[in-house]
Amino acid sequence: MDKVRHITPEKEMKVSQLVEQMKDAGFGARNLGQASQIFKEMLQDKDCKIFLGIAGAMVPGGMKKIIIDMINRGRISALVTTGATLTHDMIEALGEIHYQCDFWDDRDFQDKGYDRMHNVFMKSEVYEILEKFFIENWQKFQEARNITTFLRKIGEFLPEREESILRICYEKNIPIFCPGIADSGIGLMIWGRLMEGRKIEIDTFDDMKEIIDLAWSSEKNGVIYVGGGIPKNFIQQSLQFSKGATYGIQITTDMAESGGSSGALLAEGISWGKMKKNGKFADVFCDATIALPLLWMSVK
Amino acid sequence: MDKVRHITPEKEMKVSQLVEQMKDAGFGARNLGQASQIFKEMLQDKDCKIFLGIAGAMVPGGMKKIIIDMINRGRISALVTTGATLTHDMIEALGEIHYQCDFWDDRDFQDKGYDRMHNVFMKSEVYEILEKFFIENWQKFQEARNITTFLRKIGEFLPEREESILRICYEKNIPIFCPGIADSGIGLMIWGRLMEGRKIEIDTFDDMKEIIDLAWSSEKNGVIYVGGGIPKNFIQQSLQFSKGATYGIQITTDMAESGGSSGALLAEGISWGKMKKNGKFADVFCDATIALPLLWMSVK
Amino acid sequence: MDKVRHITPEKEMKVSQLVEQMKDAGFGARNLGQASQIFKEMLQDKDCKIFLGIAGAMVPGGMKKIIIDMINRGRISALVTTGATLTHDMIEALGEIHYQCDFWDDRDFQDKGYDRMHNVFMKSEVYEILEKFFIENWQKFQEARNITTFLRKIGEFLPEREESILRICYEKNIPIFCPGIADSGIGLMIWGRLMEGRKIEIDTFDDMKEIIDLAWSSEKNGVIYVGGGIPKNFIQQSLQFSKGATYGIQITTDMAESGGSSGALLAEGISWGKMKKNGKFADVFCDATIALPLLWMSVK
Amino acid sequence: MDKVRHITPEKEMKVSQLVEQMKDAGFGARNLGQASQIFKEMLQDKDCKIFLGIAGAMVPGGMKKIIIDMINRGRISALVTTGATLTHDMIEALGEIHYQCDFWDDRDFQDKGYDRMHNVFMKSEVYEILEKFFIENWQKFQEARNITTFLRKIGEFLPEREESILRICYEKNIPIFCPGIADSGIGLMIWGRLMEGRKIEIDTFDDMKEIIDLAWSSEKNGVIYVGGGIPKNFIQQSLQFSKGATYGIQITTDMAESGGSSGALLAEGISWGKMKKNGKFADVFCDATIALPLLWMSVK
Repeated sequence: MDKVRHITPEKEMKVSQLVEQMKDAGFGARNLGQASQIFKEMLQDKDCKIFLGIAGAMVPGGMKKIIIDMINRGRISALVTTGATLTHDMIEALGEIHYQCDFWDDRDFQDKGYDRMHNVFMKSEVYEILEKFFIENWQKFQEARNITTFLRKIGEFLPEREESILRICYEKNIPIFCPGIADSGIGLMIWGRLMEGRKIEIDTFDDMKEIIDLAWSSEKNGVIYVGGGIPKNFIQQSLQFSKGATYGIQITTDMAESGGSSGALLAEGISWGKMKKNGKFADVFCDATIALPLLWMSVK
Repeated sequence: MDKVRHITPEKEMKVSQLVEQMKDAGFGARNLGQASQIFKEMLQDKDCKIFLGIAGAMVPGGMKKIIIDMINRGRISALVTTGATLTHDMIEALGEIHYQCDFWDDRDFQDKGYDRMHNVFMKSEVYEILEKFFIENWQKFQEARNITTFLRKIGEFLPEREESILRICYEKNIPIFCPGIADSGIGLMIWGRLMEGRKIEIDTFDDMKEIIDLAWSSEKNGVIYVGGGIPKNFIQQSLQFSKGATYGIQITTDMAESGGSSGALLAEGISWGKMKKNGKFADVFCDATIALPLLWMSVK
Repeated sequence: MDKVRHITPEKEMKVSQLVEQMKDAGFGARNLGQASQIFKEMLQDKDCKIFLGIAGAMVPGGMKKIIIDMINRGRISALVTTGATLTHDMIEALGEIHYQCDFWDDRDFQDKGYDRMHNVFMKSEVYEILEKFFIENWQKFQEARNITTFLRKIGEFLPEREESILRICYEKNIPIFCPGIADSGIGLMIWGRLMEGRKIEIDTFDDMKEIIDLAWSSEKNGVIYVGGGIPKNFIQQSLQFSKGATYGIQITTDMAESGGSSGALLAEGISWGKMKKNGKFADVFCDATIALPLLWMSVK
Repeated sequence: MDKVRHITPEKEMKVSQLVEQMKDAGFGARNLGQASQIFKEMLQDKDCKIFLGIAGAMVPGGMKKIIIDMINRGRISALVTTGATLTHDMIEALGEIHYQCDFWDDRDFQDKGYDRMHNVFMKSEVYEILEKFFIENWQKFQEARNITTFLRKIGEFLPEREESILRICYEKNIPIFCPGIADSGIGLMIWGRLMEGRKIEIDTFDDMKEIIDLAWSSEKNGVIYVGGGIPKNFIQQSLQFSKGATYGIQITTDMAESGGSSGALLAEGISWGKMKKNGKFADVFCDATIALPLLWMSVK
């Protein structure tokens, strides 16, 4: 029987020390500590491919550098994310800015051309810069035959000087899956070009082959779900074609009881074969802008 | 100044009477009562097109007949949903079943071939019936050039005798948008056919034209978001091309503070032009399997 | 294996019919339907004493008449609640009013003397009426030797014409337990009198005898927790001296994972002996202003 | 306009550095970063008295040493907490243990005499040790005339060698308020003695004088609410007799929309005069076992 050990506060405590201690505390702290433990094992297991799912406006939330660092050093084999996240990433890569707002009046913001995401906003004029980029580079993007290669092309032509999720994935040759890309600013940009009479032939189903191959071919799989939504579900779906994930971490603010995929406990995946029967997993019920930095800084 | 009026319990009280009373109570009850009021106005406003977004396993949750009835009588102009919801709908339309489970052992469920969604499960063998249907009807589906027409084809060839969301949308000629279709059992079925060497040319971006046209061309728009995810976000995106929604209702269990789209308050949409400045809207923080029946039965 | 049955919408559907159907749906709806079922059994089981715990501003939330009706017809043996709820109840019994507010500016409310509780407010001047009542009736209240008799005295001298939780409990001779009474407007009124040099000798621990006797002496116990807090915990504590509750219903918006009593699942009580091993119980994760009317109208 | 600055991951990052960076990120991270900032200001403002409210099983949650350290160095003028927290603290001070459990069967735990609190449990036999302590020391406790002095007496006679919240408050002469003490193991112990015919005269309302005096007499007040419940509400109540808090921090997992005090935003307190109009405050929606260590380690 393991005792609950109280977290011992120390003046210059490192994040890694705190999270290490959390695994012997109780409640949500223990789950977070266990998630960190599983993350470490996942990283050390060279036979394990890691699938990272990112939902929920993590770029406006200030998490971009952490995600880039995870991709850069975290042995990520595939990133699955929303079109919104990639759009936010492009916007910043093209020099635009997300701003803080602690008080707001949405009517006033509308007049000023500010688009709000809880306590963050951007100027709606960022879409013009985005459009300009797509118009200028369309010819190169046009070669893409599926979403991953299209996104790879974007990463290739984004300014090198700026930090970007799309750019780092291009550089590291890590595929980005985005099954819901039509539902995003990037989707609107593609649609805009098609409306202008330009052409592109993107096969949405072609990407499935690649991610299923990835899941199927690896000896072991690990999953990291930041938020739920399509990124989680798409990885879960692919895992059914593997022997199920060996390692799993999830950060969510949704609840299991309402039955949706975003709040579903990782254990549920065992019934589906998405998680191995003897897999190691931890569910962290926490705002990802709090839990993700803790997790990454504790394993880095 | 309006008084809080206490809900007066009556023996044979109708749902509509209860929800009517809720709008003068406090806290979540009032929000629900107001949502019902807005729903009624939306339905009575003949100039208003209604966009219905459905996320979160509502078919396993027992909400299928309510959704079908909403589509049948609720003046819905467009349904946006997840591939999972449509897959669950197909499974039942093909005669398969979702079962109740109040206790479970996921390892045991895996052995038995039961796939769990919180307190509901289905047999994993349902995928065989699904596959058979896709193989048999592929030739007809193959003609589809975008997702809405593909889904329309499915609706056309599903058994008429069974109630189905796909079928009713086909019969009523209501487009179903599903930008994330690759992320679903239906997506897997398409992928499976492509792996067999069959062909299909679905243009994911073509659907955007139709929904944006719908939003842009109507005098007024109303939105109903059951859960968040891609369905909400895709409708919100299209509304930017309108003058913003005049009416809005949202049911969610996610929280605004963590910054994702699923929990974002409808008021936030004003800043983006997704909601009109003087639009009427109500956010209901509640399990949709509880709030949706109340809402629909109160306006029906 | 029980099938998930879809809720069948009907035009004039009664609340009781809807909740009856919910028990065969999924997710939160099923939990609510099961809670209703357990409530019915509890009411029909004549050997069962029912303990009702009420937390969370249910009077400003518009739930007063429902609670009164539950006390009046619901075979409640004991009410455990917060001082705040009893203060809100007194305020209304003395003719004062809770108002609706859908928009607010807390600074402006402060200037106007409005005290806000989410989307409800009252005038801060209500405390003067409260004080007047306590001053006028102090001599009678002074006789009380414990909290339950003190609260009984309040109920006795409240105007008969007004509906009130305190009044109905007095009339029906149902004890009200309020272990945290010092933490409330009523507590402040008592403190105010003591500051004026008046005397009272209330023994906070004397009430424990009565509630433990109630729990201990009955053949079977049933519990209904609306919100968590002290009311739930105090009933749970008393149940340890019984053989544990045979029936249990809980409505909460807090989460189990953060470890507090308010979000703890009823099943946890089995380990403590607060819930019988073969007890019937249901946890409803829902705003109580939505779930409580559904529950009560479904069993009434 | 302040830019959202992305958190920059560093290998040996300190907790204080991370939380410092959070205040320029978005969503919940920013709220936490702001809470830390306000905490620092509160600590540096020598005219400010700090009221600490603790609810929600923080001792089983592994937070005891952090709370003790906050009391020891955090300039806390008053601790308001639940009887449960003080009971858990006593149990450990008397040498008993809280254990970790990541899987459990509540029926089995009942057989084994294990009392579960989410993923933590204790042996039910701890109550025997507790009882022994109360029997042995009753004569000294009996002198207490109100709850704060009673709790001070407990602190005085607890073993010095063990770390304890009750003990440190005794040593530092910091009053502990516990208006709901009857609702706890300590309450049961007092009740048990009274049942044996022993006497004590504790005046529950006497404590109110002291906390109201504290709030009223200080130039400025700061509040820290860990969880909601009675501790938050009792401090809020006392603040009405001050000019309102100048600084406020709250950590909660409950939601504002359901109207209870536990989830109410600190801004709401402005309307009541519990928070100053120009007060600084931050609401952190997070499991306290995660957010509290971050907050404390960031200001320590």
